[in-house]
Amino acid sequence: MQLAMIGLGRMGANMVRRLMKDGHQCFVYDNNKENVDALVKEGAIGATSLEELVSKIEKPRAFWFMIPAAITDKVINELVPHLEKDDIIIDGGNSYFRDDRRRAQELKPKGIHYVDCGTSGGVWGLERGYCLMIGGEKEIVQHLDPVFKTIAPGKGSVAPTPGREKFQDTAQEGYLHCGAAGAGHFVKMVHNGVEYGVMAAYGEGFGILNSADCHKKKREVDAETAPEMHNDLDYEIDIAAVAEVWRRGSVVGSWLLDLTAQALAENPDLSNFSGKVSDSGEGRWTIMAAIEEAVSAEVLTSALYARFRSRKEYTYADKICSAMRFMFGGHHEKK
Amino acid sequence: MQLAMIGLGRMGANMVRRLMKDGHQCFVYDNNKENVDALVKEGAIGATSLEELVSKIEKPRAFWFMIPAAITDKVINELVPHLEKDDIIIDGGNSYFRDDRRRAQELKPKGIHYVDCGTSGGVWGLERGYCLMIGGEKEIVQHLDPVFKTIAPGKGSVAPTPGREKFQDTAQEGYLHCGAAGAGHFVKMVHNGVEYGVMAAYGEGFGILNSADCHKKKREVDAETAPEMHNDLDYEIDIAAVAEVWRRGSVVGSWLLDLTAQALAENPDLSNFSGKVSDSGEGRWTIMAAIEEAVSAEVLTSALYARFRSRKEYTYADKICSAMRFMFGGHHEKK
Amino acid sequence: MQLAMIGLGRMGANMVRRLMKDGHQCFVYDNNKENVDALVKEGAIGATSLEELVSKIEKPRAFWFMIPAAITDKVINELVPHLEKDDIIIDGGNSYFRDDRRRAQELKPKGIHYVDCGTSGGVWGLERGYCLMIGGEKEIVQHLDPVFKTIAPGKGSVAPTPGREKFQDTAQEGYLHCGAAGAGHFVKMVHNGVEYGVMAAYGEGFGILNSADCHKKKREVDAETAPEMHNDLDYEIDIAAVAEVWRRGSVVGSWLLDLTAQALAENPDLSNFSGKVSDSGEGRWTIMAAIEEAVSAEVLTSALYARFRSRKEYTYADKICSAMRFMFGGHHEKK
Amino acid sequence: MQLAMIGLGRMGANMVRRLMKDGHQCFVYDNNKENVDALVKEGAIGATSLEELVSKIEKPRAFWFMIPAAITDKVINELVPHLEKDDIIIDGGNSYFRDDRRRAQELKPKGIHYVDCGTSGGVWGLERGYCLMIGGEKEIVQHLDPVFKTIAPGKGSVAPTPGREKFQDTAQEGYLHCGAAGAGHFVKMVHNGVEYGVMAAYGEGFGILNSADCHKKKREVDAETAPEMHNDLDYEIDIAAVAEVWRRGSVVGSWLLDLTAQALAENPDLSNFSGKVSDSGEGRWTIMAAIEEAVSAEVLTSALYARFRSRKEYTYADKICSAMRFMFGGHHEKK
Repeated sequence: MQLAMIGLGRMGANMVRRLMKDGHQCFVYDNNKENVDALVKEGAIGATSLEELVSKIEKPRAFWFMIPAAITDKVINELVPHLEKDDIIIDGGNSYFRDDRRRAQELKPKGIHYVDCGTSGGVWGLERGYCLMIGGEKEIVQHLDPVFKTIAPGKGSVAPTPGREKFQDTAQEGYLHCGAAGAGHFVKMVHNGVEYGVMAAYGEGFGILNSADCHKKKREVDAETAPEMHNDLDYEIDIAAVAEVWRRGSVVGSWLLDLTAQALAENPDLSNFSGKVSDSGEGRWTIMAAIEEAVSAEVLTSALYARFRSRKEYTYADKICSAMRFMFGGHHEKK
Repeated sequence: MQLAMIGLGRMGANMVRRLMKDGHQCFVYDNNKENVDALVKEGAIGATSLEELVSKIEKPRAFWFMIPAAITDKVINELVPHLEKDDIIIDGGNSYFRDDRRRAQELKPKGIHYVDCGTSGGVWGLERGYCLMIGGEKEIVQHLDPVFKTIAPGKGSVAPTPGREKFQDTAQEGYLHCGAAGAGHFVKMVHNGVEYGVMAAYGEGFGILNSADCHKKKREVDAETAPEMHNDLDYEIDIAAVAEVWRRGSVVGSWLLDLTAQALAENPDLSNFSGKVSDSGEGRWTIMAAIEEAVSAEVLTSALYARFRSRKEYTYADKICSAMRFMFGGHHEKK
Repeated sequence: MQLAMIGLGRMGANMVRRLMKDGHQCFVYDNNKENVDALVKEGAIGATSLEELVSKIEKPRAFWFMIPAAITDKVINELVPHLEKDDIIIDGGNSYFRDDRRRAQELKPKGIHYVDCGTSGGVWGLERGYCLMIGGEKEIVQHLDPVFKTIAPGKGSVAPTPGREKFQDTAQEGYLHCGAAGAGHFVKMVHNGVEYGVMAAYGEGFGILNSADCHKKKREVDAETAPEMHNDLDYEIDIAAVAEVWRRGSVVGSWLLDLTAQALAENPDLSNFSGKVSDSGEGRWTIMAAIEEAVSAEVLTSALYARFRSRKEYTYADKICSAMRFMFGGHHEKK
Repeated sequence: MQLAMIGLGRMGANMVRRLMKDGHQCFVYDNNKENVDALVKEGAIGATSLEELVSKIEKPRAFWFMIPAAITDKVINELVPHLEKDDIIIDGGNSYFRDDRRRAQELKPKGIHYVDCGTSGGVWGLERGYCLMIGGEKEIVQHLDPVFKTIAPGKGSVAPTPGREKFQDTAQEGYLHCGAAGAGHFVKMVHNGVEYGVMAAYGEGFGILNSADCHKKKREVDAETAPEMHNDLDYEIDIAAVAEVWRRGSVVGSWLLDLTAQALAENPDLSNFSGKVSDSGEGRWTIMAAIEEAVSAEVLTSALYARFRSRKEYTYADKICSAMRFMFGGHHEKK
């Protein structure tokens, strides 16, 4: 079927490629003309403005947004004046689920349908397909099924889940209609929250292995330093090899571990990285949702906070503690 | 080669099967005679006592222990009087790494070699192979290589890690000599710590999805109840389907997720489980190691604490907080 | 000066008493007529409706709300039609700071001034005075200074802070103008967040003391139970006595500890409490603010989550972990 | 009575002063002769060696150690050859409770008594007295009562706890016999764990207030940056004033808050501190004890980990997360 893609960055461009390869006709637009040109060379139909994009595709038109969440509303506002009843906007970015609900509500009187589609897969999606978590009206989601089916990974080589034969949904194909407007991004939001937690679990584990030689270093003996209870942490663990061995037969095997093993194979001391870890919104919203639900989420929250902390040289909290220690105990900070 | 297996529970018995299938000759012993008999029927050579076990196998003898960590020392003490110089004890259980160091030290004057072998794979190991993390003397570990190679998963269908071709270790076969005595169990200990963290990350995420309909329930309006800021959490997420869809193309795909999807396919409301989660030692030791190393491990610790908490109806800490609230604010507990 | 109090619960009634004792003239209203009558007997001027309340007090009128945050907007909407330019609404409850900002904005065109006043002190405020954290327009806050001065504790017997003589604010009297609309409740919100953290710190500490005899109990020896590394935790600590001794000379002395010591003196085994700990909103908002600021707040978040957890028999996260353990290891839950 | 003090640092010297002021006869020793001389000038009897110290004091002799925990065993070993049956060693430092148990056991055959005495009070103890948490044999602790009574704060100006009149212990005087050998340091250990938690709670709260102006700063709009949900955090909170106002009438008043207010009055921007926070052992042991007891201690653990983190520029865990993000999403770290 026909689909317009707005936003041709890392993910948008590869989704277009995946769609064209499977016989869909793609119309493409991006602020950066070079991105448009590149896909036109590969068979897409380009546009130099949103208006032109709208004019080229057949009705009912479907526009897939693959742009930063922070500018989605702006681009919707630019696009909508050119749209008509029954047109569809699919937001494949990382929008906040409440923005989805609001947008669906705002577009409804115009007869425009809004679908939110959480998309996971990163730079590997072209090859592996993208896991899609979809929210919106049932009929519209069904109408778009051919597009979702193509973008999603399909059954592929992943073993079927015993006991799941009886279920009639598309989850085994790698895409799922999760519920009404916002439900797709809600599930994707939690997905990213889980991702933070899983990443941090590996990170901390490798961190503990990395310091398993700590007793080889001389430590000070004074009232400011925790006294040693043992002196035997003298292991020099080959962390790249551990990441590799855990990939086979162990309980913690995963795709993130595969990637970690690859990163460590290429750069064993991780010297390419300073350790400043960004967060792009969904981790924060996951915690806010947990709090609204009164559900404790210690692990996911700690993973988020570790990212906050990684981007700072010191915290104000630490300074307050340091000041208190000086006040009650005359303790001066260690250099 | 010849190997004696002591302890024929879930894991020990399957390791014997895996070894025999690959042509090794296995001598088996267990407190429970039925366990011995079952394997004898499959081709193993049984023994009714440790002494008999020792007498049957050729020198230098190798004894693999697959028993609860709490009784390992006891069984070593029973076995050692029957051993001679150059015999080998392999502890495949979940021993504390400092116990390994001590045992290696204690057995050294007798010329007996001690190898610690952290083993992951659970009930699936017969089919998938067991991931092995090994500590001990280099020559002894090399001598046992045929056994490790058989028990480990091998390269199998897991894709090779790009960039890892140049490495000369056995990690790609699923087993790894991690260092001197204790190093194997140290790495396995951290493995389990990571396992707790990854499990809790999924658990919390699914928990947030599970409460995504919380605003459908009526809530009280009084000074004791946090006022609602929103009223739109009305999603009824099909969690079994989400677990399934995340298996394909998403960043959080993993073997633990595969198993979760299977558990949910078979028992969608998890009614088989009360939520009391055991911990078997290695998670605790991981945190203790982190603290000795002065490495923060928020995520792994929270995962451990959630298990502690799951086994209690209430905590003393909660009672203290409840008592304080009554004292300063006259707040009475909600029923 | 004259002041109208709306809401005569635990805190509102005592604030009226404190004001009258210091010579202010108080006009009082509450849904519950008995609460009004009680204060009329003590000298307040009662009203049976908001309209009557407005009619009795002199202009410019000041109305102090001491009601649950969840109904504040409703009562404002009922009151405002009776108000005139230059009247003042003071919200002494636990409103969300963004509601304050909105209300101040909405009331501005009508010439009505809005002041938010975070109030700490609980049932002890009549005697100790209430700590006041105030947000709003500078002139209005100054106009209300006589009221704040009376309600606040004053210098009292608390020792002056060395080095603070040079500061010209009212902080030493126990009340503070923190900034524009919402600033008062923002500071009060964080105050409550800190309160949760401090309470939980004591709670956990006493919890560790309470289990210091754990090795006196027999434990199981099996692969599902963490093996003991020590067997010496046989202390039976008198927790009430510890709370008492920490009150003198120790670093952790505090008013919350004083109250804990009192609770334990009266009810040493805390049998009056089940451990279900409510949260009333400000703890949640504190964490949400921390996340918006990208400031890690591990301790305050854990304190909040412990409250969530205290009100549940089990969590879904725990069930997921339990299900995983069964799937990979055949582990059955302990009874 | 007579008492020998070994270790004349900040705390030891002031304890001698407090003892002499109350009529006790003090014998003093320190590696640093200047410390001895200073106290001799104030009336103490000095010694230039442990042997000389022992020779001067009357039997049964009591030796109070006020030295770093890491060297306690060494000094005990030097002292013991000069001691006789019925002599007493009191360890007032921060020893691990299991070292106390071992020492008591080792000294028992010699008839030497060992008392562990956790001591809180810091540089303020001379004036305020020291809170003492004592472990050891009942008769020995009673024999030393006059010394404990002097060093402890006594009832002082702290209000008695209602309901505590009926209790017959010395807790109201600021010292407490907590149990057998190690019990004193166990309680002191937990005290310090609580101290970490309370400090961190304040630290985090003030940190959130300190960033309450975060929306005044321009933020980037790209897929790597969490999009803003609000733009109104524009409060410039006077944190020193908030610390001061919370001292009066609020729920979070405490001695640590008093000291924080003082530190902020003297150095409002905390420019004297870099935020590197030491930990001296007892916080770590508290968490280890919690884990042994299977008691969750999220808050105290987070407070400890924040200290670990404060002393590092980056963590290995952060680097691993950063590497993963690059691998799956092509995300490059922010500069």
